[in-house]
This record gives sequence, C-alpha cells and structure tokens, in this order.
Amino acid sequence: MIKVGIIGATGYAGGELVRILLGHREAEIKWYGSRSYIDKKYADVYRNMFELVDDKCMDDNMEKLAELVDVIFTATPQGYLASILTEDILRRTKVIDLSADYRIKDVGIYEKWYQIAHKSPQFIEEAVYGLCEINREKITAETRLIANPGCYTTCSILTAYPLVKEGLIDPGTLIIDAKSGTSGAGRGAKVDNLYCEVNENMKAYGVTTHRHTPEIEEQLGYAAGKALAVTFTPHLAPMNRGILATEYASLTKKADGSYPTKEEVRGAYEKYYKKEKFVRVLEDGVCPETKWVEGSNYVDIGFKIEERTGRIIMMGALDNIVKGAAGQAVQNMNLLFGLREAEGLELVPLFP
Amino acid sequence: MIKVGIIGATGYAGGELVRILLGHREAEIKWYGSRSYIDKKYADVYRNMFELVDDKCMDDNMEKLAELVDVIFTATPQGYLASILTEDILRRTKVIDLSADYRIKDVGIYEKWYQIAHKSPQFIEEAVYGLCEINREKITAETRLIANPGCYTTCSILTAYPLVKEGLIDPGTLIIDAKSGTSGAGRGAKVDNLYCEVNENMKAYGVTTHRHTPEIEEQLGYAAGKALAVTFTPHLAPMNRGILATEYASLTKKADGSYPTKEEVRGAYEKYYKKEKFVRVLEDGVCPETKWVEGSNYVDIGFKIEERTGRIIMMGALDNIVKGAAGQAVQNMNLLFGLREAEGLELVPLFP
Amino acid sequence: MIKVGIIGATGYAGGELVRILLGHREAEIKWYGSRSYIDKKYADVYRNMFELVDDKCMDDNMEKLAELVDVIFTATPQGYLASILTEDILRRTKVIDLSADYRIKDVGIYEKWYQIAHKSPQFIEEAVYGLCEINREKITAETRLIANPGCYTTCSILTAYPLVKEGLIDPGTLIIDAKSGTSGAGRGAKVDNLYCEVNENMKAYGVTTHRHTPEIEEQLGYAAGKALAVTFTPHLAPMNRGILATEYASLTKKADGSYPTKEEVRGAYEKYYKKEKFVRVLEDGVCPETKWVEGSNYVDIGFKIEERTGRIIMMGALDNIVKGAAGQAVQNMNLLFGLREAEGLELVPLFP
Amino acid sequence: MIKVGIIGATGYAGGELVRILLGHREAEIKWYGSRSYIDKKYADVYRNMFELVDDKCMDDNMEKLAELVDVIFTATPQGYLASILTEDILRRTKVIDLSADYRIKDVGIYEKWYQIAHKSPQFIEEAVYGLCEINREKITAETRLIANPGCYTTCSILTAYPLVKEGLIDPGTLIIDAKSGTSGAGRGAKVDNLYCEVNENMKAYGVTTHRHTPEIEEQLGYAAGKALAVTFTPHLAPMNRGILATEYASLTKKADGSYPTKEEVRGAYEKYYKKEKFVRVLEDGVCPETKWVEGSNYVDIGFKIEERTGRIIMMGALDNIVKGAAGQAVQNMNLLFGLREAEGLELVPLFP
Repeated sequence: MIKVGIIGATGYAGGELVRILLGHREAEIKWYGSRSYIDKKYADVYRNMFELVDDKCMDDNMEKLAELVDVIFTATPQGYLASILTEDILRRTKVIDLSADYRIKDVGIYEKWYQIAHKSPQFIEEAVYGLCEINREKITAETRLIANPGCYTTCSILTAYPLVKEGLIDPGTLIIDAKSGTSGAGRGAKVDNLYCEVNENMKAYGVTTHRHTPEIEEQLGYAAGKALAVTFTPHLAPMNRGILATEYASLTKKADGSYPTKEEVRGAYEKYYKKEKFVRVLEDGVCPETKWVEGSNYVDIGFKIEERTGRIIMMGALDNIVKGAAGQAVQNMNLLFGLREAEGLELVPLFP
Repeated sequence: MIKVGIIGATGYAGGELVRILLGHREAEIKWYGSRSYIDKKYADVYRNMFELVDDKCMDDNMEKLAELVDVIFTATPQGYLASILTEDILRRTKVIDLSADYRIKDVGIYEKWYQIAHKSPQFIEEAVYGLCEINREKITAETRLIANPGCYTTCSILTAYPLVKEGLIDPGTLIIDAKSGTSGAGRGAKVDNLYCEVNENMKAYGVTTHRHTPEIEEQLGYAAGKALAVTFTPHLAPMNRGILATEYASLTKKADGSYPTKEEVRGAYEKYYKKEKFVRVLEDGVCPETKWVEGSNYVDIGFKIEERTGRIIMMGALDNIVKGAAGQAVQNMNLLFGLREAEGLELVPLFP
Repeated sequence: MIKVGIIGATGYAGGELVRILLGHREAEIKWYGSRSYIDKKYADVYRNMFELVDDKCMDDNMEKLAELVDVIFTATPQGYLASILTEDILRRTKVIDLSADYRIKDVGIYEKWYQIAHKSPQFIEEAVYGLCEINREKITAETRLIANPGCYTTCSILTAYPLVKEGLIDPGTLIIDAKSGTSGAGRGAKVDNLYCEVNENMKAYGVTTHRHTPEIEEQLGYAAGKALAVTFTPHLAPMNRGILATEYASLTKKADGSYPTKEEVRGAYEKYYKKEKFVRVLEDGVCPETKWVEGSNYVDIGFKIEERTGRIIMMGALDNIVKGAAGQAVQNMNLLFGLREAEGLELVPLFP
Repeated sequence: MIKVGIIGATGYAGGELVRILLGHREAEIKWYGSRSYIDKKYADVYRNMFELVDDKCMDDNMEKLAELVDVIFTATPQGYLASILTEDILRRTKVIDLSADYRIKDVGIYEKWYQIAHKSPQFIEEAVYGLCEINREKITAETRLIANPGCYTTCSILTAYPLVKEGLIDPGTLIIDAKSGTSGAGRGAKVDNLYCEVNENMKAYGVTTHRHTPEIEEQLGYAAGKALAVTFTPHLAPMNRGILATEYASLTKKADGSYPTKEEVRGAYEKYYKKEKFVRVLEDGVCPETKWVEGSNYVDIGFKIEERTGRIIMMGALDNIVKGAAGQAVQNMNLLFGLREAEGLELVPLFP
C-alpha cells in the first residue's frame, strides 16, 4: 500500500485527488494538508466526504511529511513548492507537483510569465514533465519529482501533438481557443468567481498573457523540433468542469501542392494514441463535448479539415480537474510506482 | 458473473445503470434494449461510453431476453412492463422494474393516479417494494419481481420514516416540498424541458396530483400503522441531478405536554440508519445539499426542531438517478443475488 | 426632476436601482455611493453601464447627501442606516431603506433576530412599511422614511395576504417554503457563493432562524388581527434571480363543515389585487414560474386546493432584486412624490 | 403609430420582438402570427406576457396581413419567406426578414450552404442587408425588403469590420471562434437542446459548414474590396443568451516592417463606431463579456495585440436575440420609417 500525503487538499484539485484515491486499491491517504483549515475535519470542508474521510486537516510541514509517506502531491499556489522543496525531502519521498513550479525548463521564461522569482531552480532539470502519453518512458522508479501538466496545456498539447510531430500542420500558425469550466479558477473567495458573475456569462481572460502559453510552446516545440509561438486564448464558461480546446492551424502543403487528407490526419492520431487508454480519437465528424468526459480521465479528440482555407480545426475535451489535474497526477503516481497505469482511474464519465 | 439485460437503456436512468454496472465486478450487461435506437451503437447515443461499450441497441423482446440473462432491468414508461410481463418471463429471470407498475398494492389507486388500466394486476401481490433500507429482509433469492421505488419517494420516505415509525411526528400533518433536477423529467424531446425553458427558472408542477403521492402515502402508512394523506409538491430546479425534499410535520406532544427533543429525534434516526451505509444522518445543524451526494448512492438527512411552532423540518437529499433510480436498482440486484450490498455502488460523490 | 442619491450603489440591489432609474422619466441619479469603490468609475464596477453612467463612486456621507437630493435609497448592510440616521437628515430629504433596520416595529424582536443593537429606535415608529399594495395610503408626501420590504417577505406576504385577511385559511398552519436565486446573497466574496458551490446544487439554509421570519409574522399578523407564528424555510437555487414561495395552509372550515371553494379563494385574491398592476393572479391551474417575471416588477400568484387534506397550496413568484428590492423601492418613491406609480417600472419580463 | 405584424411570433426571436415593441412608443403589434399555436392566447405560450398581451395567435397569411400593417417581421424557418413572398405583398407593406432568405446576393452560394432551392430569387437584388451601422444610408423610406443579419454574423462582422476596411489586418488570416447561448438554437423540441444535454457542456458544432459563414464572407469581402474565405467555428454554451466572438487575424505589416499600434487599431474602431450608440468600444485591456450586454441592443468590442505572433485578438459580445435578431430588426424598422434610430431600444443591460 502506497502511503500518500496531499498538500493543498482542500482546493478543488486536492478534493479530486481525495475522490480518486479513495477508489485506488493500492494507495492510502495519510495526510490531508491544508493550511487554511488546520484541525478542521476534512469532511466538514467537503461534505461529500462525510463518513468517507474521518481525518482532520493537517499543516504543510513537508519535512515531516516526507518521513511518513511514499509520495506527496502538492496542489499549492505557484511558487510555494519552489520555496520549500529541499534535497532532503526529495531523498526521502517522491513529489508530484500540480503547480507550475517545475514545468518550464527555462527559468527565465518561468519568471517572466509568472512574475515571481524561482526559489529552487536547482530542481528544474531533474523534474519530469508528467504528460504521461508523451513522456511515459521518463517516468520511472528513479524519478523523484514530477511536474504535473496544467489543465489547459494537457488539453491543448494532446490535441495538436501528433500533427505537429508528424509535420502535418505548420506549428507557426497554431491558434488555441480554449473554454474552461469555473473550477479551474480555484476555490478562493473572489467577486469574479461568484455565482452571479459567472452564470449566464462567457468571457475571454488573460488574452496574450496566460501562464499556460509558454508551457504549451515548450512542449509542442519539442514535438516540432524547433521553438514556436502560439496564440492561446482561455475563456471562462458557466459550468463547473471541463475544458474544450478548439485549435486552428494551416495544413502543411505537400510537394505536389495538395494537403494532407483526412485519412493521413487520422493516421497520425492513431500512430500516437491508438494504444492510449485515456485518449479517445472520435469517429469522423464527431466533435468532442466536455460533458462526455466529465468526472473521467479521458481526453476526447476530433478534427475537421477545411478545404476552402487549407486549415484544420482540431478539438480536444477533458475534465480539467481529472485528466487536467488530479487524474493525471494519479496516473503519474501509478507510473512512478510501477502500478497498472489505469489503477483508480477507470472512472466512467457521468452523464447527464 | 450475473448476466444483465436492460430494457430502456437509452433513457437517463438506463444510462446510469450502464455507468454503474460497468464498475460492478460481478455483473455483465448482455443486452442494451432501446426501441428508439435499435441497431444504433449504444456509444453513439451516449458518447461518454465511446470505447467502453461496443454493443448496439437491441429491441425490447423480453421473452427472448428472459432466456439469456439472470436479471432484467426495465426503465420503461408507466404501463409498459405491466402490458408485457408474463409468468413465463418471471419463471426464467428476475425483473427489477424502475417504472411504477408494481409499486402500489391497491390497483384502484394505481389506476386513479396514473390514469391507465393495469394490464397484469396478478403480479402486484408478489412484487417486493425495493426500498432496501426498509424492506431488506423481503428481498431474497426467491424474489422474482422488484418494484424499484421512485426518486421522489425514496427521498421523501427515508427522510421521514424513523419519525413516523417511532410516532415522534403526527403523520397527518406531513407536508413534503421537493425540488428535483431536470434529469427526472426524462430524455424525451419536449419544449418544457428545453434548456432555455428550465434554465434560470423554478416552478412547482403536478401540484396535488403528482403520481408519487400515493406511493409515499402507502409506504409511510405501513410505518404509521394506519392510512394517511400527505401533501406533496414537486418542483423543477435548474440542475441536472439531485432531489432535495424539505418535509414539515408537527411533533407529537408527550403526556407531559413537552415535545420530543433533538436527542430523541436523532435517536430515532440512528435506530434505523446507524448501520446503513447509504443513509448518512448529518451532524446537528447541518442541512443536506444535493451537490454533496451527486453521482453517489447516498441519501443525506438533516433536521431542525422549531420550538416556536412545535414543528420539525426534515431534509433529505439524494441523486435522483442513482439512489433515486439506477443505484437503488443495483442495490436490489445485489440483494437478490446474495452479493455484497454495496458492490458497484461505492461511488464517491463528485464535487464540484 | 427628482434628485436621487444611492448609498450602496455597487451591491446587486444598488445596481438594479441604477438600471431602473436610468429609464425613469422623472428621476435622476446624482450620487452613486459605494464605500468600497470610492473614486472608481461606476461603469468599471458594473460594465453593463459603460457609456450609460459616467459618474464615479462617492462615499456615504448622508449628511452632505441630504442637502443635495430629494430622496436617498440605502441599500446597505443591516444596522448601518440605523447607526447614522439623524433627525437632521430626515428633515432635509426622504429616505427609502432597503435594509431591514426599520421594518419591524418591536425593537426587541429586531434585536433578537438580527443579533445587533438598534442604534436609532426613535425612527421606527414613523417608518412606513413600504409594501405598496397593502400600505399604499400610508405612503404620502409627508412620509419621510420608508422601510422597503425584504425580498422573501414581499413574495411570502403578498401570496398569502388575501386569504389571511379574509379568514379563508388558518394562519397558525402557515408554512412557507421559499426558493431564491443567488443574487439575494449579495456581492460579497464568500466561498459559499462561488459559482462552483452554488451551481448544480439545492440547499435549505437559515432553517427556523431566517431574519425575514418576524417580518412576515408581523405583517400577516396585522392581516389576521392577531399574533401568529409561521414556519419559513429559505432555499438557495442555482439561478441568478427569482424567488418562488410555495406556501401551505389549512383551509378554514365553514359552519357547515365545508371548505372554501376555488371560486371563493379566487374572489379573495381579486378583492385585493384586481386593480393592482404589479400583482398578477394567474388563471386556474397555472403555477407561477420565476422566469416569467424576470427583470420585471410583477408578482405572479397561483393556488391549488387539495381536497384530500383540506389544505391549500399558494405559490408566488417575483424577481428578488426588482419587486423584491429595487423595483419596489422605486414604486415607493413614485408614491412618495405623487408620481404615476408605475413610472419606470413598466419592465416587460425577459424570456428566455 | 406604425402597425406591425409578426410571422413566427412564438419563437424566441419572435418573443423578443414582442418584448421590445411593447416598449416602443410609435409602433403597435396588430398580428401575432404563429402557425403552431393558432387561436391559442399568445400569453398562454409566453406567460411573461400575461396581462400585457391579450391577443390570440393568428395564422401566417401574409397576403391578408400586408393589407393590415405597415411592416411585417418574419421570424420564420429558412426558405419559408422565399416560398411565399410576392410583388403584391411588397407593394403593400414592408418586410423585415429575420431568416437568411435574402441575405446572400449570390443565390448559388445560398443554395449550396442552405441546401434548399431559393423560391423567389427575383427579390434578392433589392433586399437591403440590414446591418444598420454599416448600411444605414441604404435603409430608407423606399426600401421594401430588409434582410436582417444573423446573430453570429452581426457579432462577427462588427468586431472585425473597421480593421478589414482600413487594411490593418490580413483578411485571409481571419479565424472566428464564436460561443453562443442556447436560445440561438430555437424553441423546437429536440433532444440536443434539452436542459440536461446542454447544461454543464461545451461543444463546437457545424464546424466548417455553418450557414453564417458565407454571410460573413460576403460582407467582410465588401469591406476588404475582394473575396475572402474565413474559418468560422460556432460553439454552444450553457447559457440562455449571448454571443461572444473571439477573432484572430494577422496584422498587416507596414512598409517599415512594423505592425499597427494599439492606437492605430483603436483609431480605426473609433472612425467607424465613435458615433454609434449601439457599438461600445471598450477601454484598453477590457474584454467584453456577454453578461454585460444581456437584454440590450449593444455590441461590446475589445481587442489585444500579440507582439510575439504579429496577431490581433478581437472580441465582440452581443445578445443574440436582441442586437443579433429582434433588436436589430426594430432598429431597421426605425430607419425605414424615419423614426429615432434608438426608439424602443434604450434597454439597459440586465445584471446579474
């Protein structure tokens, strides 16, 4: 039985970790860390857990926690983990970080987009970017630190990855228009996230400045084999869960002037995802919908070629707090400990 | 492995049966019956099931189905099962009926409230009303036909049952004001259930005439030991899932003129529910919320005594398509086949 | 042109006052008071007002404001107005208070339910309870202080008033189950009111303790001619606007043992509301829905007699920030200044 | 007083026409046409109109109607008006068509995208495309037939028009990602538009094939002075009203290799919209939100330049059944009859 500690257990991603791990047959939560609710019963914060979790919330003493557990999930604000992580902690336990602290290899880019100084850049190099479908072989028993990908990024990258990798689209033309449910904004008490402000409303935010942009660029840059710049525009949608990324790119013209066919595009997706349990490439003409993946670890992907413009429209949908956060984190844990990758994650999407 | 057939697999309750049974370790769905979608892939009707269910929809031939499976769930319109059920079918398989056809013992009351003639009253007597927490001992290997309770009724009855049974309230004063999510209205294409008609709206409907009324009265009548009449008012709420029943009754005065205390009321709830996994009696002062049970088989119950008026306000919340339909049906199946009662039903509520 | 000042202009009720007064042909807003946003452009707080309102937010100096305007609307927290109101202010201007400070004549009851000491009980006596349809003749040019009724109370009282007044129901049996949109919870940044906490959720709150209870009891007590106690249970519904009150009471038996008929009940409603523009008594069998009054000053009322139990179910719906707050406040202003009562209030409900 | 007839008065756009015209001081509705509800009281179909509209629904006899009224609004399915319009009708009355029948000048394009044969192409030429801010001078007392623009198109075109017209962007790079509330899908009873299917869901639909595409291309083509192809992707969002269009284009490089500045872009918007009452160009850095225009005739526009990619992100928001349908139709009526353009349209957006 793997012993698990969670720091930030009372945020939405933390709560989802608890939900998933309660159904995991080889892991056990030993520590519900939450600075804001120390000594309060966890089930008084999340009443869905009444009679399921009896523990009280604990502080965020990672030094102490490192001695007690095999792995720590940190679902904490940006910069927090970087400020407290030590070699000593990593020597004693594994860390799966749901924040962005170790996702970006170039610390200068991190500091520019996040507007905070990185307090422990020495760990960036060894951190593995835990996008399981792409980086699976790097996630091993030796790995000590996982940078769990962001919600928008997981969706955005997986949707475009095979076409970038295979050169079927021009990565310089990539535009990502993403729509997210409101749980992505966290559980902080802000006027902007009040029911009456979000309900019956659609808006873009963080236009040209959203912090997930460099993360997308770095990872797709690896696939393209060169640096690239993407336009990424997140939107807030009046729903609890779900991200839909609609992605636009120009198809790469072939030598004979023709564009890749539907079959070639599908072939690229299948090359990378056919064996992937959690990526579902939809049938021709089917567009993904966030509701069809709600509560599950799936990413659903569809596409449509537009002959008139030589563009392709790619669409990806996932549940932002499952595959976009807690589910992927557990998937990483399974890989780290050599468990069955899908253990605890066979969550059938909830409809309606 | 128990072989299962579903008639009405493409309604919302049918879909939820599929979701739950996919996670059940001792049951296997052999037949996805749906008259409206015969030969269509089930996963084309419910795309959350893509890559999870490969079967096509079948017709509703119960005679044939009875030979193939150990149990048939019927999630069909009122009157349908009554019109096709035969002794022959029941001799060969068990039937768990999610419609109301065999819930009411007095066929005259059924016909009056449902405004249809009952086509097979000969099976009413043997049908067991499958409210597991109350009727558990009647649900055995010998039982052939389960009348699975309605969503409003499960919530309404369980919330008041201990107090009626123990005589702590005057059952003649019982008023039930229930609020339901829209999945309870089914998947039929009706203007009244369009998004724009339901969203941002609250309304009562079926006032004084809702068909779940006599079902509540019959069952609570057994608890009271005498016939009773309740006022039951359902409301449609702009949400997918969930029922909240707010119930009002006058407390029974004791010989010394005092009312039952909070402790006595709690004692009554604990007497009946302390060992019940799926009924959670909340701590003092906590009111149930539908979100805390979403996607799970729980019923959460709270109460508050109002000294000024001598009344008690009881509140119960459940997920109308889990404990209010498919979850309870699976719970009944587990009892029928001597399985662990919670098998397949350890669903942690989804929040947010 | 009547000069208007608003204290608390950036709450939801304050914002609605602005929306309504912008369409009022005989009133002009001179002061957008908002302690939290002093010097910020009002249209930066409520961007719907961009290019409609150019003013900046002002402080809440009522002494100064009293010299500038003919009437001040106070949409402020409980206890605030009571702490600053003076004879001097009332000598110079009229005040329409949307808080509860002067609604309850018995200061002891106020202090008990609100748990605050009343700082200026000397004004309670002269304050007129501004439920226009009931108290119209008391709202005159001489009136200096209006206690604008609460949202739940307006809905609850108007729905039951004629039947209480005419003795058709036993007021001691009155139970009010009310469902409110979330704007009623205000614009404060609280976790409980976040989108993800409210959405897809129904709950009761303030059970047996909600502050609108004594206000309902006082006013219906006047109608009944005697003190009475009601059970009032508010619920939070996942929608922006609207209150639906479902009210239950036993019909009064007549000397011959019969109950009042549908026609008699309708007669009572028509006696009081036939000439009322803003109260719509619906046709037989029609239940009010909050969506049908959204954005308007209407209260829609329906009812159903339940022969089996001798009860009547009365239902009322209104928009909590229009007829339940700002609309009624403007209606009061119109009466105070001898304007056409409906001026500025001919708002057609928005559907969908 | 202008006499108005409506054909299709019981659809959502028809209902909104009624709401707006009830507040119009110089127009009066004489005919509520609705084939589906003939002889039913209009207020029984839309109960918000109870006591506001006493009329019954009429048939759709345009010949007869043309004699009775000064203007007919047709809010009817595609192809319907084209199948019944005659010279005789146009000689006697004006027609404002909210369907797409006369929006596209090239009948071949219409028939290709709409997949129906056009029954009266002889009227296409004279029809004026009623996008008031662009075509105002063509809408005169002589105009007989207005093709009222589509909801997506109004939003998409107005958001990009000044930059296309002034050559600041390369129109060949234009990508429009639009999100619409569900009222745009109409009031027809379809499973896809049920509450439980739309709620908590985001999806793209009509990808590369949506019928508003050629309408956008034609109008922006006039601005560009050449034919162009745009990528247009509509999405269904879980809200009643509102369209948000997020538009992407490459900025046109100037001779010196630099891109247009923020000030130049703002200058272009102001050139066309400064005097426009219903187009609000937001302050720097402010992104439009659909909630801020709900219930009003406004289009809110914002933009952001992305230096890294040389692109601009333009965003526009409107209420799809006001400025996107009924509001613009009334604006056209005002122009046709020489009334004040904003008459009846000074609707303050509703928030929340």
